[in-house]
Amino acid sequence: MKDLAHRLASIQPFHVMDILARARALEAAGRSVIHMEIGEPDFPTVESIVVAGIKALEAGKTHYTSALGLSELRKAIATSYAPVAIDPDCVLVTPGATGALMLVFAALLNAGDEVLLADPGYPCNRNFVHLFGGYPVGIPVNAETGYQLTADLIDANWSKRTKLVLVASPSNPTGTLVADAEMARIVERVAARGGVLVVDEIYHGLTYETEAHSVLGKSQNVFVLNSFSKYYGMTGWRVGWMVAPRDYVEPLDRLAQNIFLAANTPAQYAALAAFRPEVRAILEARRREFQCRRDYLLPALRALDFEIPITPQGAFYLYADCSRLGVDAETLSRDLLEQAGVAVTLGRDFGTYRAEQHLRFSYANTLDNLREGVRRIGTYLQARSGGP
Amino acid sequence: MKDLAHRLASIQPFHVMDILARARALEAAGRSVIHMEIGEPDFPTVESIVVAGIKALEAGKTHYTSALGLSELRKAIATSYAPVAIDPDCVLVTPGATGALMLVFAALLNAGDEVLLADPGYPCNRNFVHLFGGYPVGIPVNAETGYQLTADLIDANWSKRTKLVLVASPSNPTGTLVADAEMARIVERVAARGGVLVVDEIYHGLTYETEAHSVLGKSQNVFVLNSFSKYYGMTGWRVGWMVAPRDYVEPLDRLAQNIFLAANTPAQYAALAAFRPEVRAILEARRREFQCRRDYLLPALRALDFEIPITPQGAFYLYADCSRLGVDAETLSRDLLEQAGVAVTLGRDFGTYRAEQHLRFSYANTLDNLREGVRRIGTYLQARSGGP
Repeated sequence: MKDLAHRLASIQPFHVMDILARARALEAAGRSVIHMEIGEPDFPTVESIVVAGIKALEAGKTHYTSALGLSELRKAIATSYAPVAIDPDCVLVTPGATGALMLVFAALLNAGDEVLLADPGYPCNRNFVHLFGGYPVGIPVNAETGYQLTADLIDANWSKRTKLVLVASPSNPTGTLVADAEMARIVERVAARGGVLVVDEIYHGLTYETEAHSVLGKSQNVFVLNSFSKYYGMTGWRVGWMVAPRDYVEPLDRLAQNIFLAANTPAQYAALAAFRPEVRAILEARRREFQCRRDYLLPALRALDFEIPITPQGAFYLYADCSRLGVDAETLSRDLLEQAGVAVTLGRDFGTYRAEQHLRFSYANTLDNLREGVRRIGTYLQARSGGP
Repeated sequence: MKDLAHRLASIQPFHVMDILARARALEAAGRSVIHMEIGEPDFPTVESIVVAGIKALEAGKTHYTSALGLSELRKAIATSYAPVAIDPDCVLVTPGATGALMLVFAALLNAGDEVLLADPGYPCNRNFVHLFGGYPVGIPVNAETGYQLTADLIDANWSKRTKLVLVASPSNPTGTLVADAEMARIVERVAARGGVLVVDEIYHGLTYETEAHSVLGKSQNVFVLNSFSKYYGMTGWRVGWMVAPRDYVEPLDRLAQNIFLAANTPAQYAALAAFRPEVRAILEARRREFQCRRDYLLPALRALDFEIPITPQGAFYLYADCSRLGVDAETLSRDLLEQAGVAVTLGRDFGTYRAEQHLRFSYANTLDNLREGVRRIGTYLQARSGGP
């Protein structure tokens, strides 16, 4: 395929897609598989949101919206940041947070620009950088910094070509947050360097024993990405948003008119319902359920000798070091799927730093299934070690 | 805004957005405006499709689909090309045809590559080329070639840097088609040159007194873009597709997983209903209605001395030369909106070639409204010329 653009060589497939395909094939052949690889809430969309989508369809809301989205939805999103005051004009509705990532990188990156991001981190981020000819600079992070960038790490990795820093809090795959004080330092340091800060707050709302505070409370000279997919449970609807500094709204609008036109219209009306108090009550109950799962799975995996040095406070992932088990992550992942019937995600989907000794476990699954998964993993590991 | 990427300087705003905004402002102030600027069918989505969307929501179809779309939908799209046999694996469902344009340019264009396209043509196309660092080479086309590229024009404009040719048939803004024999020559010539041919068939189905034949009947070594937006009347749902040569499906899938994840899920289920016979009957009635509108508007505008040298056979646009009226398009467009209450689109949204003397009239409006628009334009022109 001589015609493929060079950037394709830098854009790796997600190994999890192969794992998922193999899991589905095993299931089709009658085998049972516990899914701990999937990055999507297992809950259906809350009924009130679905009903709002149905009502929008019944009311004939099937034409284009403006590129930046329904003004009612932009207002509702802005209000959701209270007590921080956000101008609705600075809110851009996008087709998923993916659309927001596309917009921000398309608007800001020139060929050769460097982007600092955490390794491990969400793989699409570095692929978007490649898409626009930039260089993703994955900064190795570990438990010492809560698997997050710090102002000092940003400083230490800054080069003449650094343009942009992406911070994701909570992080996929580690579930860890950037502490408020550190985020304040990051905001300051990136500004002092003359760079641009993009903060992925996609997993906001899904935090346990703590609240994540939007970076917008510290600065509105940053780009913030969020989505109705995770906390609001609207993955397949494909509605996300960005809050951008006011000066950037016009060029971002110009880009949005070209690169996606607008997000799905009935989905935007449905998303309006996501802010209703009765929906919030259900989402909070789900959040507590996610916390129960984390509180079960974390000690259970530790008991099986997976190392998870710090307790993740958000998202629905555990990033586990399997080196004490005497087996590399790739072999372990394959064996767990083929022999034990448990699907997990390989660390190397998220970067290169110590990736071969990590697996990501998702707890977007029922407690019963998680228990069965742990049982299967335990049985497999016991057999592997020859006992008892 | 020192941080903006260089590509933003090449991506112009659509003037039609300003016209639409001004029209809405006039309407909000109590003025009546006839909309002949809008590139969206005025019909609502057919009820059976809406009901299918509602049923999908009621059935909880709110999770992600795979990046390439629902397999049932890919099969149904492939079947819609019968008697041409298309492998469903070569069909990629995208968030609107915009998603397909994004995919094809991201997959194929390197910085510096030239893309040949017609001027006038759909403005997003050249903006996508800029997005990925390519150079759009707008080839001036006029009535002599039906406002379309020809194999000879492609030959004459080929350079060492030419990588890709984009042909849109029917064309937006001219509504004209590439004749089958010429398309065969184009396929052959681009292949002989070692280039890539992308054919935009977004307005297929909306043709009058003729059928548009997919280029896939001539070659499957081309990239074909299409959408449920125009003929199928599903604009706000944001579902389109691409048919790609088999070898490209894997890299396109890899890109799709990163740049949009998937199209809206209930919309994909709704789109499945678009192929039902009873829906087809309604769509065909709408097609006849579009033809009636064209058959009214074309002679009416000609009678007002707009030059439309050839009868457009598709889409819902008339691209009219206003030079005989003794006024440039920009002044005319402003006056029509401010004085006569008729909104139209400027030629310069579609390129530079003789753009300042052209307007695009959309007939995605009722016959009554079109008649009233023509009456208003006539009155304005009469007053302007000092008569009667």
